[in-house]
Amino acid sequence: MVDEVPGSLGTSASLALRLGQIMFSSASLFFMCLDVDFYAYTAFCFLVTVMGLVIPWSMTLGLVDAYSVFIKRPSRQPGVMTVIVVGDWVLSFLSLGAACSSASVAQIMIAESIPACPVKICSRYSLSAAMAFLSCSISFAPSLLNLWILPKL
Amino acid sequence: MVDEVPGSLGTSASLALRLGQIMFSSASLFFMCLDVDFYAYTAFCFLVTVMGLVIPWSMTLGLVDAYSVFIKRPSRQPGVMTVIVVGDWVLSFLSLGAACSSASVAQIMIAESIPACPVKICSRYSLSAAMAFLSCSISFAPSLLNLWILPKL
Repeated sequence: MVDEVPGSLGTSASLALRLGQIMFSSASLFFMCLDVDFYAYTAFCFLVTVMGLVIPWSMTLGLVDAYSVFIKRPSRQPGVMTVIVVGDWVLSFLSLGAACSSASVAQIMIAESIPACPVKICSRYSLSAAMAFLSCSISFAPSLLNLWILPKL
Repeated sequence: MVDEVPGSLGTSASLALRLGQIMFSSASLFFMCLDVDFYAYTAFCFLVTVMGLVIPWSMTLGLVDAYSVFIKRPSRQPGVMTVIVVGDWVLSFLSLGAACSSASVAQIMIAESIPACPVKICSRYSLSAAMAFLSCSISFAPSLLNLWILPKL
């Protein structure tokens, strides 16, 4: 048994991080999709796709954390941990890229005052990108901590 | 002494990765800066700033690698390795963000045919973003490998 690193899989800190990740990704998806024709822009479609991947992923791992915290801790196997670490990293990078893309596209749409983008819509794009940034920065914590304990397993 | 991980600090693989990183970052800076007024757009300024940080950083570490490969291997201290890992990670994230931002801005400038951006200039922006992507994906390898050996030091 390795010593307990807060934030690694199965701890209450990890559960809190996953819940924050679910909340911010859902907020990002909500601001982007509701009543806006985002699909005309590649960057926004990318953001929606990535957020649609992040939400089920973090829900699954949040359930594992909740089971581990409240009922009984399963043993951590190196194979499973490797899959989780790799998945976390890939999703973190994708969501960082999506957040940067949408933020810069929203910014340039405001700066060049593109007619398809009135201020009310553009500010929602920006808000969605900000939520994606928050979700992405939260998701780096568990991936780093899980990677940290991986060589000790 | 830890066992040798290829690509960690002081190995010839790491030297090759650093050289590739220097090459692609310089190419990105070159395509972006030469004869183009990039400073009107936030995303491109960000790219130039980040590439201006990546080049001296990877040159320094490349020199350390070259010294270690050709002359004599210095002992790796955990403190120094931590600084290198953190710096590598921060620069990797910054360059990923910069590459995504510039790529999506260049794409939307072509799609909306913004007058300040004729095709010749816009294709250079895209090329610069592509080089930044390559530099960024190369720079993730040594940072992962250095992080991997860090708990064993």
